Amino acid sequence: MKVSCYRKDGEFTYSLGATVTMEYLNKKIEDVKCVFIHPDFDSEDTKTRIYEICGRNAIPVSVEEKPFNILSKKGNCFVIAMLAKRMTPIEPGNHMVLVNPSNSGNMGTIIRSCLGFGVTDIAIVPPAADHYDPKVIRASMGACASVRIEVFSSFEAYMARFPENNLYPFMLDGSTILQDTSIDKPFSLIMGNEAAGLPSSFAFIGRPVRIRHSEDIDSLNITIAAGIGLYEATREELR
Amino acid sequence: MKVSCYRKDGEFTYSLGATVTMEYLNKKIEDVKCVFIHPDFDSEDTKTRIYEICGRNAIPVSVEEKPFNILSKKGNCFVIAMLAKRMTPIEPGNHMVLVNPSNSGNMGTIIRSCLGFGVTDIAIVPPAADHYDPKVIRASMGACASVRIEVFSSFEAYMARFPENNLYPFMLDGSTILQDTSIDKPFSLIMGNEAAGLPSSFAFIGRPVRIRHSEDIDSLNITIAAGIGLYEATREELR
Repeated sequence: MKVSCYRKDGEFTYSLGATVTMEYLNKKIEDVKCVFIHPDFDSEDTKTRIYEICGRNAIPVSVEEKPFNILSKKGNCFVIAMLAKRMTPIEPGNHMVLVNPSNSGNMGTIIRSCLGFGVTDIAIVPPAADHYDPKVIRASMGACASVRIEVFSSFEAYMARFPENNLYPFMLDGSTILQDTSIDKPFSLIMGNEAAGLPSSFAFIGRPVRIRHSEDIDSLNITIAAGIGLYEATREELR
Repeated sequence: MKVSCYRKDGEFTYSLGATVTMEYLNKKIEDVKCVFIHPDFDSEDTKTRIYEICGRNAIPVSVEEKPFNILSKKGNCFVIAMLAKRMTPIEPGNHMVLVNPSNSGNMGTIIRSCLGFGVTDIAIVPPAADHYDPKVIRASMGACASVRIEVFSSFEAYMARFPENNLYPFMLDGSTILQDTSIDKPFSLIMGNEAAGLPSSFAFIGRPVRIRHSEDIDSLNITIAAGIGLYEATREELR
């Protein structure tokens, strides 16, 4: 398999690192095209598991340094899987909706929190960071392998598909305080852009909520706000 | 004022960026030694405010490019303040305790969340990332200017100073579920290292709590866990 730098318009993406790659081998093997192991990788246990899973699934494994030089400039990465990009339509139920998310690391962190709180369907409204980007996959610690992520043409298109969902846009001037409210199921937690937040038009959609916090900060970091929203919305759920 | 790369054992640190620097000018002016403005900085409003505050407080302002080349390789930074490092002992009350935090960005994000939920006293137990690092200050969005941060020689030294605090170590195998418990004041939320968590000895300290989450992830990101802990502990507080 020939490896080239990740491209947004390319056919493949990559999981960088052993932990992340193991998530794909265990949870989404159908996307794995091949696995590269660095010649210096010394975890025999992990190597054995990779060969075992890949052997059983007829996935080529190659020990070579070159893909690491191309894909992982930082070093500290000894296993890479080449992954097919495949859109998985989201299903009815509780959703996280990311409107114009711009930072790959934040997107990955939010996806990990979503999986942590059992919200496995994530809608994205562009313009948005590319959710196939290896940076997103890595920041998610491989959680990307266990969730469905669908990109919609607009927020209206999302709403039209899930008219039964209770919409909770998170806004700094939301009229409902998260701490004092209960989130009805099925819910859509709607988060805006890191810097700009949600467009003001969202004030007229569903029940706009804000997280009560001190006036000493302008806002919470978006990944923290999303984490707290997920925690509160699923408070009774995972018992 | 001569500027050199940030050094852990140096006397000074730096706020990189206009927003962060404004926080120091507004909240902790006594630490500001001088301010540098990039010749290309074009926000007249901010410039006026900087000159006004610095003029009133006899703080030198210098328009020059050199400090930016030395301190901010990334660009996208047009204002820098040189700051004296000054330890501010924490006071009795609710605390965040970071045991062996290793990542500067995470530390800054947690400090911002602390300020957001009114927990303005933060204890650090080494080995730990340097909380004066400009990366911490920047990730905190300047929240560092509004909190007290004290480094203790050991967790025992911290406990001895605040024997009245209710200790809540956050552990993956904590016996109390955060969702089902109420946090007694004054509290100490105790967070471990990003990768390793807290040493197992903390299982015998105070009331070890865990955040109930699905088995599909090993753990939540430490900044998310800290944010959720702060949210839950201050749920009734900020009303």
